[in-house]
Amino acid sequence: MEELQALWDRYKEAVRSGGNPQALYQEMVWPALVARWKEAPNVHPRREAFAVSVHTLGTSPEATILAILGAGAERVYVLHTRESASYLERLQKETGKPIYPLEVGKSDVAAIYREVKRILDQHGDVPVALDLTSGTKAMSAGLAVAGFFFRRFYPKARVVYVDNEDYDSELRRPRAGTERLIILQDPHEVLGEVDALFAKELYGRGEFAQAARYFQKMVGATGDGRWTLYQSLAEMYEAWHALNFPEAHKKGSGLLDKLAQNAWLNHPLNRSRDLLEKQVSLLEAGKAFLEGKDLGHRRGVGAVARTLLHLGEKEHRPLLAALYAYRALELLLQERLYRYGRLADQPNLTPEEEAALRNALAEILGEPPSAVEVPKKLGLLHLIGLLRLLGDPLLAGKPAGELRGLGGVLQARNTSLLIHGFEVPTGRQVGALKGLAKDLLADLDKELGPAVSLEPLPLGF
Amino acid sequence: MEELQALWDRYKEAVRSGGNPQALYQEMVWPALVARWKEAPNVHPRREAFAVSVHTLGTSPEATILAILGAGAERVYVLHTRESASYLERLQKETGKPIYPLEVGKSDVAAIYREVKRILDQHGDVPVALDLTSGTKAMSAGLAVAGFFFRRFYPKARVVYVDNEDYDSELRRPRAGTERLIILQDPHEVLGEVDALFAKELYGRGEFAQAARYFQKMVGATGDGRWTLYQSLAEMYEAWHALNFPEAHKKGSGLLDKLAQNAWLNHPLNRSRDLLEKQVSLLEAGKAFLEGKDLGHRRGVGAVARTLLHLGEKEHRPLLAALYAYRALELLLQERLYRYGRLADQPNLTPEEEAALRNALAEILGEPPSAVEVPKKLGLLHLIGLLRLLGDPLLAGKPAGELRGLGGVLQARNTSLLIHGFEVPTGRQVGALKGLAKDLLADLDKELGPAVSLEPLPLGF
Repeated sequence: MEELQALWDRYKEAVRSGGNPQALYQEMVWPALVARWKEAPNVHPRREAFAVSVHTLGTSPEATILAILGAGAERVYVLHTRESASYLERLQKETGKPIYPLEVGKSDVAAIYREVKRILDQHGDVPVALDLTSGTKAMSAGLAVAGFFFRRFYPKARVVYVDNEDYDSELRRPRAGTERLIILQDPHEVLGEVDALFAKELYGRGEFAQAARYFQKMVGATGDGRWTLYQSLAEMYEAWHALNFPEAHKKGSGLLDKLAQNAWLNHPLNRSRDLLEKQVSLLEAGKAFLEGKDLGHRRGVGAVARTLLHLGEKEHRPLLAALYAYRALELLLQERLYRYGRLADQPNLTPEEEAALRNALAEILGEPPSAVEVPKKLGLLHLIGLLRLLGDPLLAGKPAGELRGLGGVLQARNTSLLIHGFEVPTGRQVGALKGLAKDLLADLDKELGPAVSLEPLPLGF
Repeated sequence: MEELQALWDRYKEAVRSGGNPQALYQEMVWPALVARWKEAPNVHPRREAFAVSVHTLGTSPEATILAILGAGAERVYVLHTRESASYLERLQKETGKPIYPLEVGKSDVAAIYREVKRILDQHGDVPVALDLTSGTKAMSAGLAVAGFFFRRFYPKARVVYVDNEDYDSELRRPRAGTERLIILQDPHEVLGEVDALFAKELYGRGEFAQAARYFQKMVGATGDGRWTLYQSLAEMYEAWHALNFPEAHKKGSGLLDKLAQNAWLNHPLNRSRDLLEKQVSLLEAGKAFLEGKDLGHRRGVGAVARTLLHLGEKEHRPLLAALYAYRALELLLQERLYRYGRLADQPNLTPEEEAALRNALAEILGEPPSAVEVPKKLGLLHLIGLLRLLGDPLLAGKPAGELRGLGGVLQARNTSLLIHGFEVPTGRQVGALKGLAKDLLADLDKELGPAVSLEPLPLGF
């Protein structure tokens, strides 16, 4: 070290006395520097045993020679331009290692990225040093962008570069002896931004279980506790969408408690606290209704029916969307029937009522009353017929012709491939079901007050 | 241009005659170069109207001055180190623009990445130039990594740098007049690697509709037709998982045709052609069975039941997993009953058979025969009882006690919150259902030959 300092001072003096800076450097300084790096390269934070190294090469072969020696790999790739090809021989000679050259355009970020990706694909299981010291900024950028991004798949890849602690601006050179090979932190990892992006995309698509897992991982990776709150939020929606109201309510109330704590008053989710409170209160109503199985708990019925309809909207597989819509419709009909003191699975019809129901259904279906069956447990169409008989304001007001179109799909519930049959309903059939269920829900809302949005809270990032 | 060339020649001569290269450059060349860039900067491929520019700054303020002039933005951020702070005043003076300085550590990739992200978050809706010309390689890398990655959200951001077409290695300077500001291609976009990653993750998670959309997008973004084959594959699984066998079969056979074409013989999916053929043939069997509703089509029944069980395994919401398992079990029981010439929804029991069934069920349930109901359409438990009576080898061989544990969950099908009731089954209950269904499927497999894996094909990238 002291030896290099002395050499540098003598070199500087020689340049000032009018010598050629380049030639003098090669003669006076460089041999000692290379000798030193062959013996003990200066690597920060510590030396690693790389099996492969990849280097961009521009007009400063010296830095690349140091990087090759610092990485110490046996397999060395060099991404060079047409101009810098002339330095390849020198690299080989001075490092004593075979060099695998790859020519790229000096501004072709994509080509460098592609080459780096290809090398990583080949050597994904061993430690690879990606050195961006030399070459144009475009070359270095291409290498860094590829290196940091593909660490997701090849975690043994490291991006490195030769820095110097002191730059002599008079000589336009790093002062010899202050060079060190730095292993760079992966910014994607440090800041968790790629995971944040994944989590956000998953959350936005309603993949809440997966989003929660990413948020959880990010707490560890970034040391930033704010992600735990996002994890709770995603877990709340996950349970809610699995119709597990007690679990969803627990997660939601826990989150509200946390957001009220001093540490999290500025958490982005607090900007949507109002909506979160309404959603948690909806979950509480749904939970109470399901626990008590009390069709008189109208807020609870509304909460569950709204959830079923929401899930039906989000579900792109028609079979499942139909199931949600059928159940939402049935639940809303059950609630209305309960207002008349009746239950769908024990309607206790008088013979007169049964005859009247047969006639009412015959009118809707356009069939003779004798062809209509009235089972012990009423199906969807029977519930509608009975409610019309009982004078339900909304259903009695609908003309029989309008309901006739629905007759088929209402009776088809049991022939679904997911229930007892072999049919897959079409999107149009599902739409008709949803339409009627939405009418009933809107009618219930008139009584319960403004509807709460079930859309997931904005994440605020 | 010619004027600059003449200046350069005179400058070079002056340096050779022993003048100070730095001082002479500032005096002889630089003023003309700046004047030229103020008037008509050289931008490749063409000038853009940037509203904001962000620059890393090291020991070459000249290049940054050109970059600021080339970007032409009114709001200019400069990421500088403690050492390069001294150049800030010069930037401001020579460009005539106010500069917003941000100090960063010269090797702190993460800090630069964070600052760039923050600036993009603030100015996401206007064109931003991110210039990596000056500064250490770590600084440039941090800027490039952030800039290219966050273009997903801020597509108006561009990564740029000042390159030169001719570097004078004697003077260690770009030859004046050959500098140009290059707007770099985004390598993630050019190669579609980020989208490929997303598509792969989605595919791996069974989000086939979304994966198909990414693959489709990539065809346009990369111009690489091989992604269309992945799109078809994802669409096949999407339809299959929606139990739409005809559509899935159509997609699968179309894909097989394409893979046999000359252009795609080396497509990675051809490595799994064998499995794909088996899956497509399974889809064909399922399709034929559902179209003909023929329980005698055992391969078709097997295909649909295996699919239902597979979906039940993949589904993490217990309510839906239960539905799949119930239906798989029922279908397999229906098929077995059909071997005895009976149908579940029209069992045509003789009075003797009905009495015997009542007794058989009473034994399983541990209840008196008088408490057992036998409805017109047989439920799961009745089917099992009847098959035992009829001498089904597998079911008659199971002791009544073993089936008793299943009695509750078999009868609970209709009380599910998704069917007619308010219950959410537990994972354990679903497990018991699956267990019996798997036994029956394995028994069917003995006859049909080795089972085909329903796991999605490996993508090979």
